[in-house]
Amino acid sequence: MPKNKTYTLGNLANKLSLSLEGDPDAVVSGIATLASADASQLSFYHNSKFFYDLKNTTACAVIVPPDAASQCPVNKLITDNPYLAYARVSHWFAAGGDEAPGIHATAVVHESVTLGNGVRIGANVVIGEGTILGDECTIGPNSQIGPNCRLGNGTVIHANVTLYADVTVGQQGVIHAGSVIGSDGFGYARDGEKSVKIAQLGGVRLGDDVEVGACSTIDRGALEDTIIGDGVKIDNQVQIAHNVKVGEHTVICGCSAIAGSSTIGKNCIIAGAVGIINHVTIADGVTVTAMSLVNKSITTKGVYSSGTGLSEAALWKKNIVHFRQLDDLAGRLKALEKHLKDS
Amino acid sequence: MPKNKTYTLGNLANKLSLSLEGDPDAVVSGIATLASADASQLSFYHNSKFFYDLKNTTACAVIVPPDAASQCPVNKLITDNPYLAYARVSHWFAAGGDEAPGIHATAVVHESVTLGNGVRIGANVVIGEGTILGDECTIGPNSQIGPNCRLGNGTVIHANVTLYADVTVGQQGVIHAGSVIGSDGFGYARDGEKSVKIAQLGGVRLGDDVEVGACSTIDRGALEDTIIGDGVKIDNQVQIAHNVKVGEHTVICGCSAIAGSSTIGKNCIIAGAVGIINHVTIADGVTVTAMSLVNKSITTKGVYSSGTGLSEAALWKKNIVHFRQLDDLAGRLKALEKHLKDS
Amino acid sequence: MPKNKTYTLGNLANKLSLSLEGDPDAVVSGIATLASADASQLSFYHNSKFFYDLKNTTACAVIVPPDAASQCPVNKLITDNPYLAYARVSHWFAAGGDEAPGIHATAVVHESVTLGNGVRIGANVVIGEGTILGDECTIGPNSQIGPNCRLGNGTVIHANVTLYADVTVGQQGVIHAGSVIGSDGFGYARDGEKSVKIAQLGGVRLGDDVEVGACSTIDRGALEDTIIGDGVKIDNQVQIAHNVKVGEHTVICGCSAIAGSSTIGKNCIIAGAVGIINHVTIADGVTVTAMSLVNKSITTKGVYSSGTGLSEAALWKKNIVHFRQLDDLAGRLKALEKHLKDS
Repeated sequence: MPKNKTYTLGNLANKLSLSLEGDPDAVVSGIATLASADASQLSFYHNSKFFYDLKNTTACAVIVPPDAASQCPVNKLITDNPYLAYARVSHWFAAGGDEAPGIHATAVVHESVTLGNGVRIGANVVIGEGTILGDECTIGPNSQIGPNCRLGNGTVIHANVTLYADVTVGQQGVIHAGSVIGSDGFGYARDGEKSVKIAQLGGVRLGDDVEVGACSTIDRGALEDTIIGDGVKIDNQVQIAHNVKVGEHTVICGCSAIAGSSTIGKNCIIAGAVGIINHVTIADGVTVTAMSLVNKSITTKGVYSSGTGLSEAALWKKNIVHFRQLDDLAGRLKALEKHLKDS
Repeated sequence: MPKNKTYTLGNLANKLSLSLEGDPDAVVSGIATLASADASQLSFYHNSKFFYDLKNTTACAVIVPPDAASQCPVNKLITDNPYLAYARVSHWFAAGGDEAPGIHATAVVHESVTLGNGVRIGANVVIGEGTILGDECTIGPNSQIGPNCRLGNGTVIHANVTLYADVTVGQQGVIHAGSVIGSDGFGYARDGEKSVKIAQLGGVRLGDDVEVGACSTIDRGALEDTIIGDGVKIDNQVQIAHNVKVGEHTVICGCSAIAGSSTIGKNCIIAGAVGIINHVTIADGVTVTAMSLVNKSITTKGVYSSGTGLSEAALWKKNIVHFRQLDDLAGRLKALEKHLKDS
Repeated sequence: MPKNKTYTLGNLANKLSLSLEGDPDAVVSGIATLASADASQLSFYHNSKFFYDLKNTTACAVIVPPDAASQCPVNKLITDNPYLAYARVSHWFAAGGDEAPGIHATAVVHESVTLGNGVRIGANVVIGEGTILGDECTIGPNSQIGPNCRLGNGTVIHANVTLYADVTVGQQGVIHAGSVIGSDGFGYARDGEKSVKIAQLGGVRLGDDVEVGACSTIDRGALEDTIIGDGVKIDNQVQIAHNVKVGEHTVICGCSAIAGSSTIGKNCIIAGAVGIINHVTIADGVTVTAMSLVNKSITTKGVYSSGTGLSEAALWKKNIVHFRQLDDLAGRLKALEKHLKDS
């Protein structure tokens, strides 16, 4: 953690609009967990499983909810949502971006590119014809931004990212290293013997405030665009196929895969390693638990799962034999029931 | 979609060798779905679920099968396989590649490299000793092609791709951005305490007409080569381990993983997020459905699945308890059957 | 396989400290399987399923265990662990690294960077402020090493890798192409409507002798570091979330995903495409089989699995209907048992 940023508690209370109980002149220079924070650090309490840590903390100050304030032995910043306050304050202790202002001498920027004020273009960046970057955009080293892309104000592209042609990213977007946006959708027609590629003529549109993790991929549409709504958060190694639509503020955790032309609602939570087959629709507010396969549309808000849960392998091997016989098992049970009813 | 390419229907009918019913001088400048196409666009009808859209389309022309032609209210191009015709025609509306002809001034190409006619080498590309590129190859920005690679005529490598040494790609190949081909297979011997790496001395050979999606990985072989047959299509984020062999014209969808030394037949369809364990063999013509685990060889052509299907989480939690007791359940059912038979 | 490295058997026996039965002056120039090795090649026998191949091999020499030596028709190098001897000898037939000594003219190395002796920095590499590279480190083309990183002696970073700021890699590490280490953990607080990003202030620390495959991702910690122990081997496309801890000498196979704050013990084997949910703990010495979901902590050494095993899809469709009715099925069985007991 960068160590050169310090704030007084009075200053933090003011910036966060929280009430402070304690010394406004006390200085914090970092954030840490309740258990590890020292007298120069701020902490937060948001979950009763850390109650012991709260009572024993040696932090300089703790962000606490009102009902726990009396149990906090040190300075306290009081709020109904300590985790949210922690999210906000965390940025004030972060290091600045790595890129220097301006365009690195080694960057290859097409003469037709439009650059906003205060852009930062890293070493070896390549930007194609007709692309437009908003104000305060940052492009990390060795990234390629294809032709005819649009990046909104304040968007940050990390290193080794590839944006193909015709990709739009809204304002305040973040694309992490190694991600690829706008690659061809996986579309082929069979001619009887082989797969004949279908040119992917659509683009990709990401809304405002979208974050995409490292090594994730979002394919361009076949004819229309692939669309990611405002505020969507996408973790690492997520795959989004052509013509998918993801609704606003949905969260997609690591290694999930969404197949072509599926539509995910708003405010959904897609946990890690979930698979969603093609051409399904998922309602708003749906949660899918880790490693589930969504093999049909989900029309009602709620929590959905698949899989068998974990077993010791020896027991599991016995059970999967019976899983393969479940239809037989169910038939035999029904026959017994009938036999007893008739007798 | 690029808008500057236009064709008359007569010209398209001629290039596609299809019969045209309608105005040969009508001009189309793009492709769209039946529902969205306007009078300047071409569309296609390949699935009866779009029959309403066909009857109401405002497209300039539709590619239709003979038995639906009478229902098409606009100009029609007639073929038994409209989806295949769409695949072919789609390319005529695609933008050209992004790379300019020739070798970008910033590319670092070893003096021993052999370059075919008409190659396009992007900015910051690095090509190692002894590598040979066929005619009309394109290498996107910031990609590395290692030493002793061979690329066939017309092969396109997109941006930020890495080919390690000794990788062969056939003719007309496409490797999308962020993919890595020829990385070390995951091979170790245990010395009792730790893992001792086995040098991976084989290479990777891709046949002709192979496409590899974005952020996919294909490892080099331990002693012999990893081999991908002609016409194989690999989607994004697919992992192919060392010494795998994939038969001709097989299709592998996104996020699937094939473990070491397994052999996949020809004309298979491996759906998304499938896992295939090591040292198994899959017959020709096998389909594996999404997110299935292939934990044994498949000797017969057919469709194979695993998993439980999706449930509401509350029901699912009850059911997985019983899954873990299936062996017990089956035993109890058998005891009941015996009891009733004996009584 | 590189063909220019040759050794006499006497030389190999000496370097491997193995006893040789045969001609010490015989020369080998490569390694191959028992079935394919010719008279210029070395092979090894480590599994009885290759016994036929052993008896019929035309290799120059075979590394064999003592109890099989009499069955080997050619020169033999004798050891209790032929696979381990093969691992060791394999490196002597590998090509050298691709990078030339020194710093490529196109590399962009911050003036504050500390470089050890014998480092090799490839074309277009970018290294940030304050980073320290040990002796004999190699950085492949187009990679970015962020500010304040530390690389131990002998560590190799392949092409197109991204290390964010504050990443430590121990000695003799290997990071394959396309991998990203130190990207932001996936942490947000909800403000009722949207996700508010939590700055990820921790770093990543990899121990000595760690290998990371291609296109894998390891996120930086939220407050404390993400930690990978000495000797850990990570395959391609593995995702490790923020604040995960992986114990020494654990092996994680391709496409596995470990969610935030989970702890994996020492000497575990996590097979391919495994999912591990967040905040769980896995004991030392645990094996998790392919594509299992670890949805709770594992406290006891052993082998664990989930999933249903593979079926033909027609049968599978019947069985998953019953899986969704398992709770009902179990209840009906219990009712029958009660009925019979009472009658």
